[in-house]
Amino acid sequence: MAGMMRQVVLAAYARGNPRPSDFRIEQVPIPEAGEREILLKTLWLALDPLIRFSIDEKLLSGATHMQLGEVMFGPTVSEVVASNHPDYAVGDFVEGRTGWREYAIVAPDRSDYRGPPRKLDPGLAPVSTALGALGGPGQTAHEGIVTVGRVKPGETVVISAAAGAVGSIAGQIAKVLGARAVGIAGGPDKCRALRDLGFDAAVDYKAADFADQFKAALPDGADVYLDNVGGDVTLAVLPLLNRGARMPMCGYIAYYGVGMEGPGPDHLPGFYRHIMAKGLEIKGFAGIFAGQKGLDDIAGWMKQGKIRFPEAVVEGLEAAPEAFASVFSGNAHVGKLLVRVADKA
Amino acid sequence: MAGMMRQVVLAAYARGNPRPSDFRIEQVPIPEAGEREILLKTLWLALDPLIRFSIDEKLLSGATHMQLGEVMFGPTVSEVVASNHPDYAVGDFVEGRTGWREYAIVAPDRSDYRGPPRKLDPGLAPVSTALGALGGPGQTAHEGIVTVGRVKPGETVVISAAAGAVGSIAGQIAKVLGARAVGIAGGPDKCRALRDLGFDAAVDYKAADFADQFKAALPDGADVYLDNVGGDVTLAVLPLLNRGARMPMCGYIAYYGVGMEGPGPDHLPGFYRHIMAKGLEIKGFAGIFAGQKGLDDIAGWMKQGKIRFPEAVVEGLEAAPEAFASVFSGNAHVGKLLVRVADKA
Repeated sequence: MAGMMRQVVLAAYARGNPRPSDFRIEQVPIPEAGEREILLKTLWLALDPLIRFSIDEKLLSGATHMQLGEVMFGPTVSEVVASNHPDYAVGDFVEGRTGWREYAIVAPDRSDYRGPPRKLDPGLAPVSTALGALGGPGQTAHEGIVTVGRVKPGETVVISAAAGAVGSIAGQIAKVLGARAVGIAGGPDKCRALRDLGFDAAVDYKAADFADQFKAALPDGADVYLDNVGGDVTLAVLPLLNRGARMPMCGYIAYYGVGMEGPGPDHLPGFYRHIMAKGLEIKGFAGIFAGQKGLDDIAGWMKQGKIRFPEAVVEGLEAAPEAFASVFSGNAHVGKLLVRVADKA
Repeated sequence: MAGMMRQVVLAAYARGNPRPSDFRIEQVPIPEAGEREILLKTLWLALDPLIRFSIDEKLLSGATHMQLGEVMFGPTVSEVVASNHPDYAVGDFVEGRTGWREYAIVAPDRSDYRGPPRKLDPGLAPVSTALGALGGPGQTAHEGIVTVGRVKPGETVVISAAAGAVGSIAGQIAKVLGARAVGIAGGPDKCRALRDLGFDAAVDYKAADFADQFKAALPDGADVYLDNVGGDVTLAVLPLLNRGARMPMCGYIAYYGVGMEGPGPDHLPGFYRHIMAKGLEIKGFAGIFAGQKGLDDIAGWMKQGKIRFPEAVVEGLEAAPEAFASVFSGNAHVGKLLVRVADKA
């Protein structure tokens, strides 16, 4: 397929919150599929907050993850437009990690730790859901609520970043399990959207009376806290956790730009005090390793109308840098933030 | 029983580390046992670091635990010297929580959450072990290594405050389970004592080359970290924990005097980063709720010579305030710190 395509590369390592100027858009030739390779046309690109880690100059290990000038990582849904591999046919839809570009070559036999591109059934649900409810965010929500959180009927579940892709599904799973779901989100619009999704209460952490509202939403405290945030929000949740509460941890957006040490005071002593006084159980986890079971559960619940999945769409690859930066400055979207890169062929 | 006795009362709420001047010794008449009460003569008093919480002016809940002038709390082993209760006879030995005094009245029918005084079999082991290996510290070590830590053969277990009552037992339990035990303690004498107890390695956190020594002691990282300390020691352990490591938490002596916030920088962002990057599992627990199973295991292992239990003894109730304060300034004792209040009648 001759012609040119656009891609987004890393122009500068991020310091603190990412800025649109950390990225650069390039025009390059569309590549050609070699032996046992396939050419994918990107339809949807997911702007996962976790990508933030890839653009630190140093990882926790001290290694550098991305080189300047490299194409940005990111989960995508694509259409196969040329195939030299027997497992993939032109017209197939796949979910993969081809990054911020309009076309990409993949060699399914030489795939990364997540395996070859996952073929999607467009009859089951819109293919974009492979980046949300029926993809990594859905797996994370299921793992956090069902497996790590072990939510039981009648318990109260608090979810931070509740209007995000993981949070919005997690609250609905908690409801399916017979628990009470309380979401924390920024702004009245997000809170309204959460109540529309079935959350029993949604509290605006930007409101002046957040502390009072939050206490009122938790008359019996909380038994599970799905933490995707850290920072001030978590410090407000800790005093309301019940004895033996579980705290599945799947992200900490408040600290992504901070590194190992933030400005004082040191909140670790208080964190310890809560863990010990209440016998808390905290576990970090990554849903992408959770397997198919969670996705099957969610697909079933979606069919029964028990789970709805909101998507916020920005148009065109060129919008990706600004939309990604907005994730870290408390943007207004609800659900999964997607870039519609192209319509299907 | 006519006569006078001594008791230690709280003279001032502690700020930071406790000082001997926070306590005062009083002379009072020996009380008399009323209906269905027993009179206990204190033989042994345990100086548990956790008592530190009782002498804060405010607990986490905002409540005040102890009043000024009240007799200090504390676990004790006593002899029954007068009994008006059918379940206890003169000459029985019991473990209870009668505090820092030479005699105490107990009403077994009106006992606290830990139940009536526990009768001891002096033929099984010296009665002082009811405050250590066969008491709360033993339960805590067992719960941390066996139940919360789920230590498996071939794993590496790191233990902070390893020369303390909990740590010294915990390391030996890890060895019984077929794991490698690495202890962290302050000073070469304590480290030598740990190696004598069978620890595979013991590292002195006060040594100038602690970081290098510690890394050398963990060529394959650590799978379980029994944390009794927090603070700088834990910050040194975190980078060496393996993926999926468990971190049972039974205390945090580095923060007991700090309250909710310590001086900056804020170490909570780095703590989150480790939890997420490695999928750590952290759980606060209190061994005293762990039941009899752990004590039976330990008693069996002691009989087989697989677990030895060091005790450090100071003489006389009047020595308690200074000995207790020394716990927080890194004193040199190994094992359980006990006050011998009296010999048996």
